[in-house]
Amino acid sequence: MRAFASDNYAGAHPEVLAAIAEANVDHAVSYGADPWTARANELIRAQFGAQAQPWLVFNGTAANVLSLGALTRTWECVVTPETSHLHVDEAAAPERLAGVKLLTLPTEEGKLSPAQIEPLLARQGDEHAPQVRVVSVANTTELGTVYSVAEIRALADVAHANGLLLHVDGSRLANAAVATGASLAELTTKAGADAVSFGLTKNGALGVEVVVFLRDPGPEGFAWLRKQHAQLSSKMRFQAAQVVALLEDDLWRRSAAHANAMAAALAQRVAAIPSIQLTRPVQANAVFALLPRELADAVRPDFPFYTWDESTGEVRWMCSWDTTEDDVAGFAAALERAAAATA
Amino acid sequence: MRAFASDNYAGAHPEVLAAIAEANVDHAVSYGADPWTARANELIRAQFGAQAQPWLVFNGTAANVLSLGALTRTWECVVTPETSHLHVDEAAAPERLAGVKLLTLPTEEGKLSPAQIEPLLARQGDEHAPQVRVVSVANTTELGTVYSVAEIRALADVAHANGLLLHVDGSRLANAAVATGASLAELTTKAGADAVSFGLTKNGALGVEVVVFLRDPGPEGFAWLRKQHAQLSSKMRFQAAQVVALLEDDLWRRSAAHANAMAAALAQRVAAIPSIQLTRPVQANAVFALLPRELADAVRPDFPFYTWDESTGEVRWMCSWDTTEDDVAGFAAALERAAAATA
Amino acid sequence: MRAFASDNYAGAHPEVLAAIAEANVDHAVSYGADPWTARANELIRAQFGAQAQPWLVFNGTAANVLSLGALTRTWECVVTPETSHLHVDEAAAPERLAGVKLLTLPTEEGKLSPAQIEPLLARQGDEHAPQVRVVSVANTTELGTVYSVAEIRALADVAHANGLLLHVDGSRLANAAVATGASLAELTTKAGADAVSFGLTKNGALGVEVVVFLRDPGPEGFAWLRKQHAQLSSKMRFQAAQVVALLEDDLWRRSAAHANAMAAALAQRVAAIPSIQLTRPVQANAVFALLPRELADAVRPDFPFYTWDESTGEVRWMCSWDTTEDDVAGFAAALERAAAATA
Amino acid sequence: MRAFASDNYAGAHPEVLAAIAEANVDHAVSYGADPWTARANELIRAQFGAQAQPWLVFNGTAANVLSLGALTRTWECVVTPETSHLHVDEAAAPERLAGVKLLTLPTEEGKLSPAQIEPLLARQGDEHAPQVRVVSVANTTELGTVYSVAEIRALADVAHANGLLLHVDGSRLANAAVATGASLAELTTKAGADAVSFGLTKNGALGVEVVVFLRDPGPEGFAWLRKQHAQLSSKMRFQAAQVVALLEDDLWRRSAAHANAMAAALAQRVAAIPSIQLTRPVQANAVFALLPRELADAVRPDFPFYTWDESTGEVRWMCSWDTTEDDVAGFAAALERAAAATA
Repeated sequence: MRAFASDNYAGAHPEVLAAIAEANVDHAVSYGADPWTARANELIRAQFGAQAQPWLVFNGTAANVLSLGALTRTWECVVTPETSHLHVDEAAAPERLAGVKLLTLPTEEGKLSPAQIEPLLARQGDEHAPQVRVVSVANTTELGTVYSVAEIRALADVAHANGLLLHVDGSRLANAAVATGASLAELTTKAGADAVSFGLTKNGALGVEVVVFLRDPGPEGFAWLRKQHAQLSSKMRFQAAQVVALLEDDLWRRSAAHANAMAAALAQRVAAIPSIQLTRPVQANAVFALLPRELADAVRPDFPFYTWDESTGEVRWMCSWDTTEDDVAGFAAALERAAAATA
Repeated sequence: MRAFASDNYAGAHPEVLAAIAEANVDHAVSYGADPWTARANELIRAQFGAQAQPWLVFNGTAANVLSLGALTRTWECVVTPETSHLHVDEAAAPERLAGVKLLTLPTEEGKLSPAQIEPLLARQGDEHAPQVRVVSVANTTELGTVYSVAEIRALADVAHANGLLLHVDGSRLANAAVATGASLAELTTKAGADAVSFGLTKNGALGVEVVVFLRDPGPEGFAWLRKQHAQLSSKMRFQAAQVVALLEDDLWRRSAAHANAMAAALAQRVAAIPSIQLTRPVQANAVFALLPRELADAVRPDFPFYTWDESTGEVRWMCSWDTTEDDVAGFAAALERAAAATA
Repeated sequence: MRAFASDNYAGAHPEVLAAIAEANVDHAVSYGADPWTARANELIRAQFGAQAQPWLVFNGTAANVLSLGALTRTWECVVTPETSHLHVDEAAAPERLAGVKLLTLPTEEGKLSPAQIEPLLARQGDEHAPQVRVVSVANTTELGTVYSVAEIRALADVAHANGLLLHVDGSRLANAAVATGASLAELTTKAGADAVSFGLTKNGALGVEVVVFLRDPGPEGFAWLRKQHAQLSSKMRFQAAQVVALLEDDLWRRSAAHANAMAAALAQRVAAIPSIQLTRPVQANAVFALLPRELADAVRPDFPFYTWDESTGEVRWMCSWDTTEDDVAGFAAALERAAAATA
Repeated sequence: MRAFASDNYAGAHPEVLAAIAEANVDHAVSYGADPWTARANELIRAQFGAQAQPWLVFNGTAANVLSLGALTRTWECVVTPETSHLHVDEAAAPERLAGVKLLTLPTEEGKLSPAQIEPLLARQGDEHAPQVRVVSVANTTELGTVYSVAEIRALADVAHANGLLLHVDGSRLANAAVATGASLAELTTKAGADAVSFGLTKNGALGVEVVVFLRDPGPEGFAWLRKQHAQLSSKMRFQAAQVVALLEDDLWRRSAAHANAMAAALAQRVAAIPSIQLTRPVQANAVFALLPRELADAVRPDFPFYTWDESTGEVRWMCSWDTTEDDVAGFAAALERAAAATA
C-alpha cells in the first residue's frame, strides 16, 4: 500500500530499526537507567538547551496529557485552537487524564493569535471561574500550517506577561523546524516556549515521543506522574535507541525535509488541476484540498487518504519520511487522470 | 552486563526483532486496522478462547489499569494481595487512573485464598461502603509462586458466587502456564477468570502487553478507554508483530520454560550453600533467598540483583528467556566463592 | 442591604425556616431514611411524574456534576451553551468531578437551538473523538431567557433521535415554569427531558437542590455516586423539610411568580430611562441592561449588583422571592435620579 | 424516637436554629463575603490559632476529601487506620475525589502508634512506589477512643521528622477535647497537627463542617478546590451562623461534655449487667459492647442502635448533645430487663 492518509502509515526508518537491533545486546537496567537513555537525554538537551528535561513516553496523547497535567492544577485550564488534536482527537484524555479543562478558540488556518488570549483572562482570580494557566498550540498545526519563530515568541510573550505558560504540541515539530529554517531550540526554548511534546513517531520512529520541559525548574515529581500514567517503559533502551538514531546526524531533519519536499511537489502538481483547489497554505508535509467527491472516490482505492471535513468534502494528503517521488508522481497522475475523466 | 535483577533487564528475543523488521514494509493503516494486528488478535483468541477480546497496550501498568478500570465503576473496589504489583509498584495508578480503591489482604507466599474474600463482603449494598467488584491476583505472583488451575478455579467460583469478577495480572502468565503444565486458556478462561493482563514484554517482546477480556460481552466502549489512556499505538503493526512472533510456534512457551528451568537450576545450586536460605517455593522464574549482607554485597557488582525486603535482607533473583546456563553457573560459583570467603 | 446582585443574596423564606424548626424534634434516622425525606420525594414525584427519582444534594454545582456524571462515561461529552454556568462558573467541576468534556456552542440570548446539535455528531463511533452523550441547557438561561415547552421538546427530540439525553440545569426552573405557565412536569418530563438539576435555594430554601432522573430506569448506583461526592447529608431531614415547605401549597410557584413580577416591574420602569438600554428579553427574574458606567457606579453602593460583561459594561439585575415593590421603586428611582444627574 | 444509633440522629441545638433565624434578615453577599462568615472565621482562629485558615464545607466526607486532596499530589498517599471512616465509610471518596491512595494499618483500639509509620517509608523516592505524604487519624477514633495531646504530638513528630504532614479527622473533635481536657488548639495546632476536619454537625449543628489548615502557608488555590468540589455554599451566612452559635460561649464544649457524660453514665450502668461486656475503653461519647443477640434484638425496637461488627455481634451506642438522663436511664433499664428475661 502507498497512502497519503497519514504520516503514521509509514513504517520505521531503517536506521531506527538498526539502532534498536544494536541496542539488543546483553542485559540493561530497566526503566531508563541505561546508557541509551542517557545518550538520548544528552542529545535532546543538545537540541533544546541545557536546561531541557526530557521524559520519554509512548505516544503523542501521552506527551500532551502528561505535559499539560504537570503544568496545571485541577482548576486550571488550557487555551487551545478549536481544531487542536487535544480537543478533537484524544477522546477527552486532556480532561479525564490530565484533569484540565480546555478553552477553545477559532483560528485562522489553525493558528492562534496573541490577541485572542487576553480576553479570556477577565476572571483570573475569581473562585467560580476556571483559571487559565497554559496556552497550547501545535507546530505544525493540524491544518499543515506553521508558526514562525516570531509567532511563537509573540504567543510566549503574551502568555508570560499574564502569568501563563506556553506548551507546544510538537507531534510534527521536525516538519515545522524544517519549514521555518529554525533549529528546534530557536523554535521553542529560545522563542519562549515552556514545554514541548516532541514527536518522533511520525518522523521515522517505531513509536516514541518526548515530553520536554524547557526551563528549570520543571514540574516536581514528574517521574511519578509518568509512571502513574503507565508511560514508563521497562525496556526503555529500545525507546531511547530510536531517539538516538533520529537525533544523531540530523536524521530527524533529513526525514522531515524530505516529507515537506514531497508535500510541496504534490501541491505543485495538484495546483495545475482545475477541478482541485488547494485550501490551506502548504507549509510543511500536509496538503489540504477541495475536489469533487467522485474524483476523490476514483483515486482513493489506490492511494488511501482521509476526508478532513465531511461537510465540505475537504481532504487531507500527508507526506512522510518514506513518501517517494514515484508515490507523488503516481498519485498526481492518478488525480490528473481522474480529473480528466470526470471533467 | 549479566544480571539477575529482573526479567525486564533482558532484551528482545531475536525472533521478535525479526518480526518487527518484516513488518516494516510499505504503508499500513495506523491504529490497529492492519493485517498484523488482525493476525495477533486471531492468535490470542486461539490461546484464550473464541470469545477473547484482545486489546494491545504499551505496558503492564496500562494493562492492569485499563482492565480494572473497565470492569468497575468509581465506587467499586478491587481485592488484591498486599504484595501485589498493583498496590506497591504502580505509583497509585489503579486509584488515580482506573479510579479503583484497592482492598489489600495478607497472603501465604503471595497467594490469595478463596476464604479471604467473603469476609470483605459484609457491607455490599451499603451506600457508605466501597463495593467490592473484582478480585485481582497475579499469576505468577510477585513472590514467584504459582496458582494452579484448581486454585484459580476456586477463586473464580467464590468471586462469581458473590457477583464479583476475577482478573489475573498475567505479567508472567507464560511462566505460570509452563509451571502448571496448563494451556493459557486452561489457566484463565476455562478456570473461570474474566479478564487477563497478558504480559509479553518480560517473555521476550520489545514492549507489548494485552488486555484480554475473556467472555462476551466485554466492557462497552473499551476502544475509547484505551485511546483516552494514551495506550493506542499509532504504528500498531509493530506491537502486533511482536505478539505474532511470540504466539506463533509457541515461542512464548519455550521462552518461559527456559526461564523457569534456569531458576530451578539456580535454586538447586544455591540450596547447597549453607549460608543461603531459599525463602519461597521456586515454582517459576524467581528465586528468593536470605543471605548475609556482606555475601550479597560481594557478588552484586558482577551480577546485579535487587534486595526485595530491606528489613530482612531478603533478595530476589530473576531468570529470563535469555539467561544462559553459563550465567547460572557463573552466578552460583560466585555465590559459592563469596560464601566460602565469608564463612 | 437591599441588592439586585443575585437571587442568592436573599435569605430563606420564613415558611422554610419554620419547616426546619418543626423538623427539629426528637431523633430521626440519618442519611435520608426519615419521614421528611420520604415526604419530599413524594412531593417531587407529584411534580415531575411517577417515574421521577429524586436525590437531595447541597448545591447546584453538585446537582449538575452528579447528574451529568451519572449519565456519561469518561469519554462521553456534554453539549452546552458557551454561556452556561457549567462552563463558566463551576471552576471546571464538570471536567474534573463529573469527568465530562464540554462542547460549547454560541447561542442566541443564551438558548441552544436544535439545529446546532447534529453538526457535532459527525464523529460518533470514532475511537479518537470524544463522544457526545448529553445536551445540557439551563432553564431559565444564564441570560434570563426562558425555553418554552415546545423548545425543550424540540431539543429533546433531536437528542433522542441521535441517541443522546437531555439534561436541564434548573437552578431557576421555578421561574421558567412561571414564565411559561407550564407545570414542572410539562416543562421537563413531558417535554422529553431525561434529568433535571432542580434548584430550590434561589427559590427560598436555605440550601438544597435536587437531582431528578425523570425516567425509569435511572442510572445504576447513584446512591454511591452521591455519597462519594460528599453530597449525602447526615441530618437530611433538614434538607427535606425545605423541599416540603416549598413544594407544598405551591410556595415554589408563588415565590418564583413574585420574583418574575418584580423583574418585569423593574424592566418597565427602566425602559423609560433614555440612557439605559435593556439588552435581553426580560422573561423571568433577571434584567440585563447597558448603562453608562458612571450611572452604574452612582447607584451600586445603595443597591449592589454585578457587571455581567466587563468588556461592554452590561449589567445584570436579579429579583428574588423577597424583592419588594419598595425595593424596585427605590432602585428605579435611584437609577432615574442618577440618569438625570449624568444626563 | 430516642436512639443510641448515632450522634447524627440528633437534631440541631436550639441555639443553632436561633442563630440561623437571626441571620435570616435582609440581603447578604453570597459565597461567604458576609459578616457571619467573617465572624465564624474569627472564632475558629480564636480556637485553633492565629494562622488557622478555615473553610466551611457541607459535611465530613467533604472536609476529609478536600483537606487530604489539598495536601497531596496524585501519586502521594495517606496512612490511616484500617478502621478509619476515610477507608470504610466514604464510598471510596478519598481515592476518587481527593485522588489519594490510602495505606491502612491495624490498630490497638482504633489508634495508630508512631512506630507504625516509619516501616512504610522504605520506598520514599522510588518512582514506582506510591509516596507517603500524610498521616490521618480521627480524634475521637471510630472506636470511641481518644488520642491524648501527647499521642498527637508523638504522631506529628514522627510525621514531621520524615517530611510528612498530620491530618486529624475531627468529626468528633469536640468530644476528644472534652475527654482530654485540652483546648482545641492544644489538641491540634500546638500538638503539631497540620490540618483538621473540624466537625460541628454531630456537635449540634444543622450541617456544617470546617476544613482548617493550621499553619501558614496553607495550600495554594484552595478556594478553587472547594468550589470545584461543590462545597461552596451560596447562602453561606447560614452555615456560618451555626459555627458562630457553637463556638461562642463554648456551646460546642458544653454539648460535647454532655454527650461524653451520658456515655459514661450509660457505661457505668451497663457494666453492672453480667451478660454484657464493654469492649472498648469508654473515653468520649461512644459505648461499645458485646451482648447476646436476643438481648440486642429485644431492646433495639425501642432504642435503635447499630451492630458494629456483624461477625462478633459487637454493638455501638452513641450519645449526643441531646441525649437525656432519662434516655440513659430508660435504655439501661430496658437492657437490664431484657438481660434478666434472657438470663
